[in-house]
Amino acid sequence: MNTYGQNIKITLFGESHGEYLGITIDGLGSGIQINHQIIKDALTKRRPKSIYSTSRSEADEYNIISGVYEGKTTGAPLTFLISNQNTISSDYSTLKNTPRPSHADYPAHIRYDGFNDPRGGGIFSGRITALIVIIGALAKQILNEKGIYIGSHIKSLHNIEDESFDSIDINKSLIQNLEKEDFPLINKQVEISMKEEILKAKETENSVGGIVESAIINLPAGVGDPLFLSIESQLSSLLFSIPSIKGVEFGDGFKISSLTGSEANDSYYYVNNKIQTRTNHNGGILGGLSTGMPIIIRAAVKPTPSIGIRQSTVDLSLKQDTFLEIKGRHDPAIVNRVVHVINSALYFGVLDILSSPILKGKE
Amino acid sequence: MNTYGQNIKITLFGESHGEYLGITIDGLGSGIQINHQIIKDALTKRRPKSIYSTSRSEADEYNIISGVYEGKTTGAPLTFLISNQNTISSDYSTLKNTPRPSHADYPAHIRYDGFNDPRGGGIFSGRITALIVIIGALAKQILNEKGIYIGSHIKSLHNIEDESFDSIDINKSLIQNLEKEDFPLINKQVEISMKEEILKAKETENSVGGIVESAIINLPAGVGDPLFLSIESQLSSLLFSIPSIKGVEFGDGFKISSLTGSEANDSYYYVNNKIQTRTNHNGGILGGLSTGMPIIIRAAVKPTPSIGIRQSTVDLSLKQDTFLEIKGRHDPAIVNRVVHVINSALYFGVLDILSSPILKGKE
Amino acid sequence: MNTYGQNIKITLFGESHGEYLGITIDGLGSGIQINHQIIKDALTKRRPKSIYSTSRSEADEYNIISGVYEGKTTGAPLTFLISNQNTISSDYSTLKNTPRPSHADYPAHIRYDGFNDPRGGGIFSGRITALIVIIGALAKQILNEKGIYIGSHIKSLHNIEDESFDSIDINKSLIQNLEKEDFPLINKQVEISMKEEILKAKETENSVGGIVESAIINLPAGVGDPLFLSIESQLSSLLFSIPSIKGVEFGDGFKISSLTGSEANDSYYYVNNKIQTRTNHNGGILGGLSTGMPIIIRAAVKPTPSIGIRQSTVDLSLKQDTFLEIKGRHDPAIVNRVVHVINSALYFGVLDILSSPILKGKE
Amino acid sequence: MNTYGQNIKITLFGESHGEYLGITIDGLGSGIQINHQIIKDALTKRRPKSIYSTSRSEADEYNIISGVYEGKTTGAPLTFLISNQNTISSDYSTLKNTPRPSHADYPAHIRYDGFNDPRGGGIFSGRITALIVIIGALAKQILNEKGIYIGSHIKSLHNIEDESFDSIDINKSLIQNLEKEDFPLINKQVEISMKEEILKAKETENSVGGIVESAIINLPAGVGDPLFLSIESQLSSLLFSIPSIKGVEFGDGFKISSLTGSEANDSYYYVNNKIQTRTNHNGGILGGLSTGMPIIIRAAVKPTPSIGIRQSTVDLSLKQDTFLEIKGRHDPAIVNRVVHVINSALYFGVLDILSSPILKGKE
Repeated sequence: MNTYGQNIKITLFGESHGEYLGITIDGLGSGIQINHQIIKDALTKRRPKSIYSTSRSEADEYNIISGVYEGKTTGAPLTFLISNQNTISSDYSTLKNTPRPSHADYPAHIRYDGFNDPRGGGIFSGRITALIVIIGALAKQILNEKGIYIGSHIKSLHNIEDESFDSIDINKSLIQNLEKEDFPLINKQVEISMKEEILKAKETENSVGGIVESAIINLPAGVGDPLFLSIESQLSSLLFSIPSIKGVEFGDGFKISSLTGSEANDSYYYVNNKIQTRTNHNGGILGGLSTGMPIIIRAAVKPTPSIGIRQSTVDLSLKQDTFLEIKGRHDPAIVNRVVHVINSALYFGVLDILSSPILKGKE
Repeated sequence: MNTYGQNIKITLFGESHGEYLGITIDGLGSGIQINHQIIKDALTKRRPKSIYSTSRSEADEYNIISGVYEGKTTGAPLTFLISNQNTISSDYSTLKNTPRPSHADYPAHIRYDGFNDPRGGGIFSGRITALIVIIGALAKQILNEKGIYIGSHIKSLHNIEDESFDSIDINKSLIQNLEKEDFPLINKQVEISMKEEILKAKETENSVGGIVESAIINLPAGVGDPLFLSIESQLSSLLFSIPSIKGVEFGDGFKISSLTGSEANDSYYYVNNKIQTRTNHNGGILGGLSTGMPIIIRAAVKPTPSIGIRQSTVDLSLKQDTFLEIKGRHDPAIVNRVVHVINSALYFGVLDILSSPILKGKE
Repeated sequence: MNTYGQNIKITLFGESHGEYLGITIDGLGSGIQINHQIIKDALTKRRPKSIYSTSRSEADEYNIISGVYEGKTTGAPLTFLISNQNTISSDYSTLKNTPRPSHADYPAHIRYDGFNDPRGGGIFSGRITALIVIIGALAKQILNEKGIYIGSHIKSLHNIEDESFDSIDINKSLIQNLEKEDFPLINKQVEISMKEEILKAKETENSVGGIVESAIINLPAGVGDPLFLSIESQLSSLLFSIPSIKGVEFGDGFKISSLTGSEANDSYYYVNNKIQTRTNHNGGILGGLSTGMPIIIRAAVKPTPSIGIRQSTVDLSLKQDTFLEIKGRHDPAIVNRVVHVINSALYFGVLDILSSPILKGKE
Repeated sequence: MNTYGQNIKITLFGESHGEYLGITIDGLGSGIQINHQIIKDALTKRRPKSIYSTSRSEADEYNIISGVYEGKTTGAPLTFLISNQNTISSDYSTLKNTPRPSHADYPAHIRYDGFNDPRGGGIFSGRITALIVIIGALAKQILNEKGIYIGSHIKSLHNIEDESFDSIDINKSLIQNLEKEDFPLINKQVEISMKEEILKAKETENSVGGIVESAIINLPAGVGDPLFLSIESQLSSLLFSIPSIKGVEFGDGFKISSLTGSEANDSYYYVNNKIQTRTNHNGGILGGLSTGMPIIIRAAVKPTPSIGIRQSTVDLSLKQDTFLEIKGRHDPAIVNRVVHVINSALYFGVLDILSSPILKGKE
């Protein structure tokens, strides 16, 4: 349901236009001095704050209402509340009857027998991802201390391509630089073209999608589990919880299907007494376990479904076809915001995997 | 761990060369007359049985050792055992020290401190998927009675492409026909080329991968949950539990990232007083919930990592580089077997999703 | 951890002296018009409000911050916040080093490496039971509509005994009357003596314990599960989550151990075509399942550990023996407050059990 | 359902008269050399083997069918099968219509719509506790190495009382001696009287109940969790999964309710620089966490419901009252067998609690 995690449990609540969004975290342990700067930086990166995003901008100010005493975690459930401030009241009764194409409106109407909160998509809103950013920032603080880093970049936006992790050496400074950027790219030269695409979409009241590519580095070999708790199962499950993600792949992903075994197999060798693979077609995961190589993940982000262009839809109350024009504030692209949410989700996912009793027992 | 399911719990156990593999199922309910023909047919389809697969062929004979009385489920945990018969004893101590590239051998060695069962890959073996086929067959029996059908085909094998579900009308007879086939294809004309690819791989002691495309039809709208129990989260998590899957996408998947919102949005309209979408770029899922349209899924299957060609690897005991030639029986392609496992996994996944208390309360 | 429930998940957070306590509830379903009067009545009964309880009295005012739209549940996670207002700031550093006997202070200090919130016991405070009262009130609203009622009384307080459910006919009006009372008793004549015991304890800066007896009526036969989800397992697990409970028994409980089979067996017979048992030594539960007879539960509540009398303890920082006198506000007895918490916990427990997919499918 | 455990998951399956009973265990870790002597000893103690028990005696021979390679655990799911051999075929159709008083027959008939396995009680049979004994033996092997010991004795049988742990010094040799005994008692002088009670019950075709008292020693302070994972919640939940348990209490249990705070509080002091309490009314648990003192538990076992004496019951098919005489083999008392099952369940419960990520991280 709204609680997730094998070892560290996160519970989410709140809706786009409710008073508060919140996340309760259990299992982090006691005595952690919370680094608010990391949280604020992460929230800032996710926040729409330029002409490239929606004009609804929330300060994302949060309070910790449980689980901290004198600045450190107590070991009791840790709860963050974020208040929603920049909500615009309007008549949602129309919206309730005319579901927006490619939004959750229609299936949610059926699922909840019409009682779902229609304002801003309710719990289906991307706004809830601000909570993922909070747990991701906490996980980042813990994992960075262990030398584990995660970085993501906008691999493609509409038809503009950034370089790929395949083609370059993935090192700590690259990853740390990607993490610092608002609009993270390997090849910064494509930034202008991508932003032009976004503005073009904005001007035409349309939207564009993209692909996010992520790398997890310095995760030791032998982490994860076979079967239902494979690293792929856990991370994909988490990524598909983020609104708008329609595909997830690891290593070469779909492209590996066209290779032969001799092309796709990653052969081992010793480098300074450490085992590595010469290639990384499997993206650092075999049998659901980490190999010690960088974990490579790509996620497909669909174009924002909210567009100003007139669309056909149905009127649920009159039971007839109708049209809809979505006025109001929305993002011409969300891939540049989702990239930060994915990074956060991966930090949490990795921390959760590393917190299994067996692995903790080996520490 | 080895137990999975929100509402119907399956627990798997067994290894490639152990005496038995088994699955325990809880939550199916009482009074179900088990249809053994469906189970046997499903096991037969997964079984290697031709020149296109490994020569290790197991009869997959199973016993039910709990949960059935007078042919019907009692409501108590239902356990199936499959015996392993066609195992060849050999010296695995060499194998234990020279991990096969792109198999789980090396990370498993680290994860289990060298105590993992090396014979045939132990729990990491594809053999365990025979258990998924059993629960899939039980789920199929239940879901077909509700009119829900799932069919999968080999969308591509190495560089040979079948047609896609996009391009055709997905109806019940198409899906049922795909389910009957050993080597399911929409366009049967590509069968010969695909099989030639497999034979070519076999002759060169190499292997090939492929893509499986699946459709779930007649799932009503409003099924699923937001956040961590989105249909995508649940099904991807299950698919990534199957060895060799490296990518999962829904609807247009990765391709949706290059569309604009106006191209990607699926507009609603009434057809005979029923709401449908004109297109299905979102693959029947919005906000993690079903829309009532066919659910479309593609999964990337990597080429079998076991190849006869000499490969570089390391010697874990001597701590030096070495070579490995995998002799013995293996599949030149597994996509033609995994296609049936994916179908089974999806049947189980859908049954589990449909068995949530809220949905059962609405029945 | 802090999330509980098989079918309806509750997540608790907050501490005695934090800004807020909260509960998030998932799985109740959509369209429920929340009856605030039931919640307020239940919170009022738990609240200390007389000379028989502590002088710290909280208004227990709550806000719903997610999951409700236009007064009805949306189906999304439902979150209640209760603010803590009547907290007295004082120097807790002394307290941190001198654990109060029979409180959680010392083991919590070890468990959390000294980082636990010492103010008012932190998460170990009985204050958190206000959250159980909220979910209990919601469950009561739903279950009363199905004809299921739960009532509890103070079976004993120190050495004063009320009558027992054994000796009387348990009917709906009895149960409903017990629910209305602040100080629920079957035989109201013992109220004066019990209250005198409490005042005597208060005057001597001591405290007293007691036993709560509860009955669940009109639960149909065949509810529950064998093994780990037996009704006894589920309800005992929940009751032992309430601070100060040290024993839980069903039916004749410990007394059944001194009976013979012929004395203890509850024989069946038909009454108006309905199967009943002549006696109810098993308290309405056999094999973990309900029999249709009233479910009878008793829980032992220890005397409040906070007493004004000087006690020996240790100084954790000086590592030597010392003494402690607990000044401040505390309850001379809590059984008269816990009785309401137990009622609430049982309402939630029964609703959760009844919300299993199999039972919902039979509705 | 049939899977239990927070950190080490056990899954049970099988019925009284099925071909096999089984248990699958996940999370124990790899490299454990299984000590079969401990398992066999434990199974032998539970097994009926004298005039004091039923004449159905099973060899309880088990096979390990997964999770072990060369005698050591591999880290993959570990499965034990026990075969049922000494089952007597008879006509169960009569039994199906005339539920045995105080057995699960009637509620199971309703719960499973008449499809439950009626032979020997199916999954409700005490026979399934042999599986608990297996996991208990594995847990014992692991915990004894850490110095943690658990011992149980027959505190009372019908109206014959053994001494209590209260009255004596609980040390390792006492606990180890109790573990070795078939009929464990603190005061061996009461053995004759207790056995006479059992024989008397047997001769009169009746049965008797009793109380089991258990102690867990050398569990360090600060183990466990608040709220739903309190030690009491976890252990009671497990104990109430064992057929015939009707009450569970910790420390003084129900008797603590008649004490005052000053009598019941356990004051701290230093003994050789280690913190202890002078008394142990709370049974080694405060706030759900261990205090480092012995954990004391008592469980009430009801008299075996199967008695030869003629009893009234109903005929479910004729829908009228009738009589029943249970011929066949049954135990005149089970407390002398359940005592061993409780010991096993507690070993498992403690191992599971100690295997939490936070505690493993501290090891």
